[in-house]
Order: sequence, then structure tokens, then C-alpha cells
Amino acid sequence: MAEYETLKIGIAGLGTVGASLVKIIQSETDMLTARSGRRIEIAAVAARDRKKERGIDLSGAEWVDSPEMLADMPELDIVVELIGGDSGAAKVLVESSLAKGKHVVTANKALLAHHGGALFALAAEKGATLAFEAAVAGGIPIIKALREGLSANHISAVYGILNGTCNYILTEMWQNGLEFETALQEAQEAGYAEADPSFDIDGIDAGHKLAVLSALAFTGKPDFGGVEIEGLRNISAIDIDYAAELGYRIKLLGIARLTADGVVQTVAPCMIPVSCNLATVEGATNAVFVEGDRVGPTLYVGAGAGGMPTASAVLADILDIARGNAPPLTPFVETESEAPFETRTGRFYLRLTVKDEPGVMADVTAMLRDHAVSMKSILQYGQGGAESVPLIMITHEAKENAVRDVLAALHGLDSVLEKPCFLRVEMMGEEDA
Amino acid sequence: MAEYETLKIGIAGLGTVGASLVKIIQSETDMLTARSGRRIEIAAVAARDRKKERGIDLSGAEWVDSPEMLADMPELDIVVELIGGDSGAAKVLVESSLAKGKHVVTANKALLAHHGGALFALAAEKGATLAFEAAVAGGIPIIKALREGLSANHISAVYGILNGTCNYILTEMWQNGLEFETALQEAQEAGYAEADPSFDIDGIDAGHKLAVLSALAFTGKPDFGGVEIEGLRNISAIDIDYAAELGYRIKLLGIARLTADGVVQTVAPCMIPVSCNLATVEGATNAVFVEGDRVGPTLYVGAGAGGMPTASAVLADILDIARGNAPPLTPFVETESEAPFETRTGRFYLRLTVKDEPGVMADVTAMLRDHAVSMKSILQYGQGGAESVPLIMITHEAKENAVRDVLAALHGLDSVLEKPCFLRVEMMGEEDA
Repeated sequence: MAEYETLKIGIAGLGTVGASLVKIIQSETDMLTARSGRRIEIAAVAARDRKKERGIDLSGAEWVDSPEMLADMPELDIVVELIGGDSGAAKVLVESSLAKGKHVVTANKALLAHHGGALFALAAEKGATLAFEAAVAGGIPIIKALREGLSANHISAVYGILNGTCNYILTEMWQNGLEFETALQEAQEAGYAEADPSFDIDGIDAGHKLAVLSALAFTGKPDFGGVEIEGLRNISAIDIDYAAELGYRIKLLGIARLTADGVVQTVAPCMIPVSCNLATVEGATNAVFVEGDRVGPTLYVGAGAGGMPTASAVLADILDIARGNAPPLTPFVETESEAPFETRTGRFYLRLTVKDEPGVMADVTAMLRDHAVSMKSILQYGQGGAESVPLIMITHEAKENAVRDVLAALHGLDSVLEKPCFLRVEMMGEEDA
Repeated sequence: MAEYETLKIGIAGLGTVGASLVKIIQSETDMLTARSGRRIEIAAVAARDRKKERGIDLSGAEWVDSPEMLADMPELDIVVELIGGDSGAAKVLVESSLAKGKHVVTANKALLAHHGGALFALAAEKGATLAFEAAVAGGIPIIKALREGLSANHISAVYGILNGTCNYILTEMWQNGLEFETALQEAQEAGYAEADPSFDIDGIDAGHKLAVLSALAFTGKPDFGGVEIEGLRNISAIDIDYAAELGYRIKLLGIARLTADGVVQTVAPCMIPVSCNLATVEGATNAVFVEGDRVGPTLYVGAGAGGMPTASAVLADILDIARGNAPPLTPFVETESEAPFETRTGRFYLRLTVKDEPGVMADVTAMLRDHAVSMKSILQYGQGGAESVPLIMITHEAKENAVRDVLAALHGLDSVLEKPCFLRVEMMGEEDA
């Protein structure tokens, strides 16, 4: 293969993804050369612990003491940033590499969610590529699909299951009837959740990914601050059961939509019809829906994390750059505006815990009427002498503000015993159940 | 936008897809220019009827009398072939355009399935791009995902729902309890099936698409002759009911797999577990699973046909060429061999119609035992004095040859009243039900 020019890469960060990347490059030299036209060489690496056993041989690469030194190595064609984090070494490395006109491949959703706008602008100014297929939904080629495959479309919505840990926990709760805390503990024992799980279960990670997808679909600039985020902690087994009874599943969805008032970005647990393709996406799998005006709805499903799937995405970016494939010149800049919260509408699942006594239903329904929130269905359970009973309602299309107001008002009633539970119902294009 | 160079295209064929393509290009000039860096101009068109009302204004384009004249127009950068068919004008146009070094974008699965190997070689020799995103699964960017997004993977299998007409018919049969002939008639009335439906319902169209996907995943050369094809005509409502009872759905699947003996390509109605994501893909929607060694299973779902979705894919190819994106240098050449039929194994659903009399079950099970075909489950229905009863069986993993032999032998028994029905059971990575 002497006729192929070498493509030299420097890798910062040798965790699971970095080590997987090295393994693929070293074991598939011929295949990768045939597919890209360049011979990929790992010329330099930066990692915290040089002596750690990773099952890979990097004796041929130059080890540098700090990641940002990679930006200063003129022989490198691409810097691969696998350090993570929205500031510190990762940010310095990506900025300084782009500033020198080097191509950067990164899996860092947090960095892009917080600083993507400035980084995209810097890359464009320097004529460098900033590639990030691995930053969203692991091995699923969703960035390529959205930006290249659907490039003849205006996108109206991007939404999906963006965090494998949350989906694993919700799947366990559903399949085994577990409460959230138990399912979280099992996920931690099975290696699907971190010891400090808040980044995942509070929706931050999904919010980062949504901000990146939303930027590609709409504004061109990730706006993590504009993502309204609600995590999983308030979901209980009883809501999953009632959802099932009503023909729904509960999933943590990231949703970015273009509305008449601007872009809405939300991460929240939602009820979706069981007949929707997303409802059967189980375990740590990710899934992303993209709705384009010409193509209609399209769905992409696959592993959302893991060393090899993520390294697969990193390598797809490297091979693209090796072949000289430049992503579309501009992001999909269509709107800069963010929809004001007050205008949002939707359908909602409400669960009240009420005293089992006469007149309660009349009080509740009067209050709903006064707030112009009308009900599609009401389920009332258990009349067996218990002091409290659950009252389950699904609203028709209503203003989210009005629903939040009525919940606060209901919470003030003597006959309502606990803080009401509230979930969005997303019909996902399905007919009414 | 004076700074952008013009990209001149010639379009052959102005049916639904061609007219949709013209509409998008004419209404989205600025967006397409921003995304590709070139101003796309429809410089020439060839279509059978110049006067037909298509709702588009092509007065600025040069009309040519026969499609192959587009190949001779030096000003054209890209020839878009939307004529269709595996021979005749489409083949002449694509061959002569590539021979002159022109890039070609086509939606023609039949042409590629029959002549793709020679056409890919011609394109490579001339340094031209032959792009065909629209040829498989309409608007779903599956070609890009397979060839670029998963380029760091060895592919072990590609399979899915590749024909919208068949999936529409099967969905109607399932949802409304219709027999095949009735569902076909409804599909024809609803515009989902042609007056002569054989191309779709006999599996030919799915076979063309599978041959193209299989070439990308494995051999580099489409081999339509190597696709074993069985259509929908033998599926009856009763099989759909029994499948449901056993926890399965029936879908027409195209399956290409790399086995120890080579590549297996099959189009056939299959039973798949209801828990599989493909089971809930309904109506005219297409869906493709791709299994890579690093990324694991990935799934792509969307509109499989229609003017706008297909034009969306055609334009994605045009924009790629405009940006100078060349697909990977070589197709994924990994094996040339085709697995001999004799080695194939699988699980099978068998439905016999037997006399309702003593000893029949003993005869049937003895014959199965003699052919080394063992049963996972047996259902026997109706003992209410009817002369014939259905006997439903699902086998354990068995040699397909042995199953076919035993079915022929069973058909010879006096107590077996009709030709036995036989369906593959594809577990799609799901656990046993």
C-alpha cells in the first residue's frame, strides 16, 4: 500500500473509547486504507497515565505530557479529542487545534452544547473540520443523516431517546415492576449507571445531545441554556403501570421542535403510545426521530454508548476527513428565536392522590373547568375503604401554563393529599388510542 | 449569491420523483446553495411528453429528444437518471454518461441490481461518481449510513422491510383480518399497489434493493441472480392469526447475511417476534437493520417511496457531489462467495391441514423425527367434529433442506389434506418468546 499517503492523527484521552479506537486502527489498517485512500497512523497520544494496561501497543506513537501539545505538532492532520468535559483540557485542545487550522474529531457533547457556536465559527474561519458524529447517540450515524442525508429538507422536529442509562432504568422499572431507586441501584451494579448518576438521570447528558441536534436542525448554534430539563427522579412504578393501562409507555425524551413562536427544546419523561416505534426501544439503546418536510418522519436506532460503537463513529469522521469530505458549508441556520414558555401547548397525564370521600371529584373537575383544561380520560381506582385513592387524568390539548397553574391550585385543596404528578403525553404522530 | 459556481444538471424522466426534484430545486435555491457551495441549475431535461402538465416551469431548461443526448452535453456536471428499468434508455444513459466521466445520480434499483458491478467499475475507471441513495428505501439515508457512517465496521447482516406495498398489504391483513386478495385490492384502490402488482408482491422489487445493499455490505457487486425470492401470495389470514397467537408478526423481509459458507441473500415472508422493532413498522414504511462488528445492530426507518422522499434522497446525492464528497474509494469487498443452499439452517413455522382422526399426530411426529427436525412448539386447534384441523408447529434450529424434505414427505400422507405452509422464523436478536 505504498501508494497511499499517510494521515497522521493525535489522540487525547485513552479511556474506553480511545483504547477501542486504537484497536480498530491497528487491526484494520488495510480495510481503513481501502475505504479512505489514506493510511491512518497514530502519531501521538496524550493520556493521564502512560503506564496503565489498556491492551494496546502504542510504542510507535509519541507520548506528550499535556493534551494541548498535540495542537502544536505540525505533522498531525487530525486531533482526536476524547477527554470530555465542557471546559479545561478538552476545551483548550479543541480551540488551539482549530485555531491552528487542524481538523478536530471529538465525542464531547458537553463541550459542543456549551461552546459549539464559537467552535463552529472558529472552524469555519480557519477552514478546518470540526467533526462530532460520536457526540450524539454513540454509533448511530445521526449527525451524518441529519446534516448530509436530509440536506434537502427543512427539519421541523428532532426527538428521541438520547440517554441509555435512563432508558435502561425505565425498561427495568417496566419489565420488573421496580421503583426508581431500586432500578437505579441495579443499573449501577450492571455498569449502566455511574456511582454519581445525576449527570444521566437528571437529564443533563440528554440535554447536551439535544442541544447539538437542535443546532444542526435549526439554529446553527447549540443553546444548552435554552433546554428545559426534567430528569427521572419523580417517576414512580405506579405511573408506569397506569401508562400501560392507558396504552402508553414512559420514556425520557429529548425534543426539539420548530414552532410558530420559535424553537422549543425539552428533556423530560413523556408518555408515548405503545404503537409508536420509540415505545419498543428498550435497555441502553438510543433512538432519534427526525422529521423533514420532504422526507417525512425518519427514525434511527442503535447503541448509544460503549467503547466500540463510539469508536466506530469517531473513525467514520476520520475516514470522511481522509477522503476530503467536507460537511455542508453552513449549519442549518433557520431561526435564532426561542419559543416563549407561555405559548407551549400539549397533552398531559396528571396523577392526583385524593381522599376517598364524596365531592372530591366535583371539586377537582370544577377547578379544571375554571382553568380551561379539559379531560380526554379519567380513571379512578380503588374504592375499597382506603383513605386515599389515585385519580388519573389525561388532558386534551391544553396550555402548559394553564395545566401547571391548575396543578398548583389542586395541590392546595384539602382533599388532594400529595404533590400531583405531571407528565407530557407525546402522540408521536400516532392516532388517538 | 454571485460568488457561487453553478452546478448544471440534466434530468432524464419527469415522473413523480423528477417533478418533485424540480420543485425542490426551484423553490430552495438559496438553501441548497448555502448547504453545498454551488448554485444548482436544471440545464437540460428529457421526458417522454413535453406538454404534460406537471405543475413545474421548465422553460429555462433545454429539452432534448432522447435521454442519451444528456451524456453528450459537455456543460452538464451531473446526469440524473429517473427513467427506471434494468435495460433500454436508462442503461444506455447511465453507461454513456459514466463513459464520458460525468457524475450520475440514479434512483434505479433494477439497473443496479442487474448491472451494478459493471457500472461501479466503469465509474471507478472514469473517476466519476455513481450515486444511488434514492434506489433503496426511498428517503432513508441508508446507503450513506452503510457506506460512510459505518465505514469502520465489518458488516455481518443487512435486512429489513424493503417494499412498502407488501408491508401495506400485510398491515391491512393484520389490522383488519383480510385475506391477501382483498388486501391487495384495497392497496390498489388506495394507490399503494400497481394495477399489475407482481413486481412488488412477488418480491422482485425487494430483491433488487437487497442486491444493492448486499453489494455495499459484502461483495461489492450486486448479484440479483443470487437472491432467493419468495413473495406474498401464499400468506393467508390464518397464518397471521397463528403468528400473533405465538407472539410473532409476519413481514416480508429482505435478508443478506455473511455466513461461514459465504453470503446468503433471501427475500421471503418471515415470522418475527412482536418485541422486535421491525414488528411495529406498519403501512408503506420501510426499515433496514444493519449489523456491524463494532457498532452492533442499527436500525433505519422511514418512507420507502413517494415523490418527495425519493427526491430528497436524489438531492442529498447531488449536494454531496456539489460539495466534492466522494464516496469511499472501493465498495466493501469482503467475499465473493455465495453460500450453498444446502448448508442453510433456521427456525421454521409449519402449518399442516390434517384429518381430525386418531394417529395423525403420531404419523406426523414420527416423520419429523426421521428427518431430524425437532419441534419447539406444537399447537393443535379445533376438535369440534370438523373434518380437517390445522396443526401448527415451530421448529428448533434445523437444516432448511431437511425441513423442505419433511414437508414434501408430509404432503404425501393421506391424512395431510393440503400443501403444507412454511415460513421462516427470524428471531432478530430477541430472546426466545
